[in-house]
Amino acid sequence: MNKPFQTVTQNIVWQCPWYAVRQDKLLLPDGSHGVYNTIMKGPAVWVVPVTPSGDIVLIHHYRYTVDDWCYELPAGGVKPGQRLEEAAREELREEVGGVAGHLVYLGQFYTANGICDEVGHFFLATDVVLGEPTPEPGEVMTIHRKPITEALDMARRGQITDAPSLMVLLLCEPHLRQLIP
Amino acid sequence: MNKPFQTVTQNIVWQCPWYAVRQDKLLLPDGSHGVYNTIMKGPAVWVVPVTPSGDIVLIHHYRYTVDDWCYELPAGGVKPGQRLEEAAREELREEVGGVAGHLVYLGQFYTANGICDEVGHFFLATDVVLGEPTPEPGEVMTIHRKPITEALDMARRGQITDAPSLMVLLLCEPHLRQLIP
Repeated sequence: MNKPFQTVTQNIVWQCPWYAVRQDKLLLPDGSHGVYNTIMKGPAVWVVPVTPSGDIVLIHHYRYTVDDWCYELPAGGVKPGQRLEEAAREELREEVGGVAGHLVYLGQFYTANGICDEVGHFFLATDVVLGEPTPEPGEVMTIHRKPITEALDMARRGQITDAPSLMVLLLCEPHLRQLIP
Repeated sequence: MNKPFQTVTQNIVWQCPWYAVRQDKLLLPDGSHGVYNTIMKGPAVWVVPVTPSGDIVLIHHYRYTVDDWCYELPAGGVKPGQRLEEAAREELREEVGGVAGHLVYLGQFYTANGICDEVGHFFLATDVVLGEPTPEPGEVMTIHRKPITEALDMARRGQITDAPSLMVLLLCEPHLRQLIP
């Protein structure tokens, strides 16, 4: 399908090391003029790590934006020039000290398409062996192993509140049920 | 659990009619100083509309941020002073011209807790009667009725790429399966 808006001008109006805001002036389909501000963030990856004994590895992460602790999957931005699989292995290693025996790409989604260009890609990591994580000073988190059925129950019961992590877990459910020992 | 970061200063560094960026200087747990930028957006609502004949009403929405057409649920921000249920009924009316016989609150989530304070609240709307939508000039969308099983299949097959819409549909699946005629 075609692009219904015509872009007239584009300017970066604010930026920080993690994202930029691009302001576009548009010609709308009804002939009027509009403005759209896009948070430019680039792609990111989410990983469902499953250990050889059938546990899902979750992070309990303090999120300053919402002043709350959230159960999440290992996730993070893809660096310029980095392949998606490399980014997935890097987040797994940094956030939970994990090394995956197998890593399978399962799909993509838009995190917040009303305001942000981020494309999320998700992976199932199996035969994950855990080691020492290396979080950054601003990443405050603890690591939790949960049996697959318990992690899925947490998702269904509202105990996982981070939307992309929750969505990825539910989408992976058919794969995960096959990994229950 | 306690708040591990101490806020030193807070300033709005950029804003537009839809959101603002607040920059906080922080004292991190290791004693070092950090900066956190939060996109301040306030709460939003997502609605799963089901007609008396058991169709889910989806929007096919052009999203300028990602230059793509996305199947989505009716959704939008909660205005200051507005109750969540009022916001849900308003989005239903504006985006698909819908009026719900019953509206049930089902839960909440964080849309993008790494960068944004948005709390998403989701509702199941049943006995939805469709009328004339009243989208804004920048909202380019078409409306699609899909039988419940088809909408859930679209979600599982990667045809719904908007993360919150997809997540809400999957979370509502047990309720939706009871509404299949």
